Amino acid sequence: MILPSLENIKEAHRRIKSYVHRTPVMTSTQINRISGAEIFFKCENFQKVGAFKFRGAMNAVLLLKEEEVREVITHSSGNHAAALALAAKMAGMKAYVVMPRTAPSVKINAVRDYGAEITFCEPTQKAREEATGILMEKTGARLVHPYDNFNVICGQGTAAVELLEEAGELDILIAPVGGGGLLSGTSTAAKGLKSNIKVFGAEPRNADDAYRSFTTGILHPSVSPKTIADGLLTSLSELTFTIIRKNVDNIFTVSEESIIEAMRLIWERMKIIVEPSSAVTLAVVMENPDVFRGKKTGIILSGGNVELSELPFNQLS
Amino acid sequence: MILPSLENIKEAHRRIKSYVHRTPVMTSTQINRISGAEIFFKCENFQKVGAFKFRGAMNAVLLLKEEEVREVITHSSGNHAAALALAAKMAGMKAYVVMPRTAPSVKINAVRDYGAEITFCEPTQKAREEATGILMEKTGARLVHPYDNFNVICGQGTAAVELLEEAGELDILIAPVGGGGLLSGTSTAAKGLKSNIKVFGAEPRNADDAYRSFTTGILHPSVSPKTIADGLLTSLSELTFTIIRKNVDNIFTVSEESIIEAMRLIWERMKIIVEPSSAVTLAVVMENPDVFRGKKTGIILSGGNVELSELPFNQLS
Repeated sequence: MILPSLENIKEAHRRIKSYVHRTPVMTSTQINRISGAEIFFKCENFQKVGAFKFRGAMNAVLLLKEEEVREVITHSSGNHAAALALAAKMAGMKAYVVMPRTAPSVKINAVRDYGAEITFCEPTQKAREEATGILMEKTGARLVHPYDNFNVICGQGTAAVELLEEAGELDILIAPVGGGGLLSGTSTAAKGLKSNIKVFGAEPRNADDAYRSFTTGILHPSVSPKTIADGLLTSLSELTFTIIRKNVDNIFTVSEESIIEAMRLIWERMKIIVEPSSAVTLAVVMENPDVFRGKKTGIILSGGNVELSELPFNQLS
Repeated sequence: MILPSLENIKEAHRRIKSYVHRTPVMTSTQINRISGAEIFFKCENFQKVGAFKFRGAMNAVLLLKEEEVREVITHSSGNHAAALALAAKMAGMKAYVVMPRTAPSVKINAVRDYGAEITFCEPTQKAREEATGILMEKTGARLVHPYDNFNVICGQGTAAVELLEEAGELDILIAPVGGGGLLSGTSTAAKGLKSNIKVFGAEPRNADDAYRSFTTGILHPSVSPKTIADGLLTSLSELTFTIIRKNVDNIFTVSEESIIEAMRLIWERMKIIVEPSSAVTLAVVMENPDVFRGKKTGIILSGGNVELSELPFNQLS
């Protein structure tokens, strides 16, 4: 199995640079005071399509275009779908997208707006993969998997490259982990740039397949996870699991309450909108203050696509 | 009556520069596409205390400090209160704040966190002024009025100075109007820097005292306004009315539905949190597309303090 290298990620960065936003790195005096850490937030919620996923999709699509591929397909709970749809549109290609019928309407609308053809399926990994397989046979479109894809992983790693360029020497870098594409790219980039940096994965306790896989050394699939962090429902692949075992120092799991509280903290103090999957990272800091106290900590805020009519804040107040 | 000049605002800018955030100017391809205008958003929701009000408060407090004043007092529905509390704290002064008992708890907590002493009153302008008068007599603290104050107005104008520096030649500049402090400072700065720029006030139709005053030439007080834009409930003063009549080209009023829709648009597309009072500006653009089509339009997003457990989005979906 060939794993991505820092050089692959740097190549991806050069390739996609003119297509992606260089998102800001934000800090919050108040969150630093509350958490005791010194946090640098890489705001991929401001990325095109509102999520880091655009980086990986754009990298994969540009490489397929070089091969003269004209149609791409994927299955995704949302952000990767919008990302592939827009990347294909920008590259002059057609995109097919298989989405669970339970995906937030804001995500469905985004995919439609970017001109992709949507097929709905049941909200299970199996149903997604089956529907995708059928559609691939029918159309001949090339699969761009949301995370089990070398070039997607390289694209995702470019956010960490920018964060480390801007924030300088970090002690710790945290990324959320669902299928593991972001954490794979992030950890490869970070360890390549600074061998003694600690890289942590952040995962909902209610969807702790990556944590269980990491601690046991055996790939555990995600079994009917129930979490507000709807971007983190998927399971690691052999590829992402291998990269994560090699590069990641630890995976922390957090409660649903911590995720909502962290999300509220970011919204209220930073005045930016992040989705629950992003807030899982800050929740790790808040649940483990001793690990992060006084540490320069980078956090990848993965995205900002939330259904505004279904916010969790009422439940707590 | 002495009115502030561009030079006064530039002096204020030099005075407060090292205390305030230079907030970013953001653009949104999607909102430009939807509105037909080319909009530059000055993001004062990222200002200290989450609102432009910090600029005016800091300017007034620094000038009072030069006079060796040690205690300040104000009445405010929220943002000015937090602003004065923090400005006083940063200047080593004590702040008293009279707040309506209906103010959002997020705003009350912010004022408390900054160390000000709070006195609650009924949510009417008369009750506020009475409570403030009693407290002033008792303590000898100096009043820093939220908008009927020369130095506060000069401070508020500094956001427009930064916006025009950064966005270049604008055709139109819009600011929300409540008591008129922001619109007074904004219009003075804008007309001073570019005499042919159009400056518009944005006001909820349900709190249209500035509109009625502007169109009739007679100062109308705000009578029991009911709007989601809780920062715009106050009435113009003689000072702000005089400045607005001199410098402002028009005041547009908008419906509550438009305010909520504009707020949703900003949250969903820009991934930033703005309060309803800020969204009134974009609502003006959306309700009057012919006025803004193809125009380079500056918008002051005045603040980002909202009660997350009482959001209006459910009502519409």
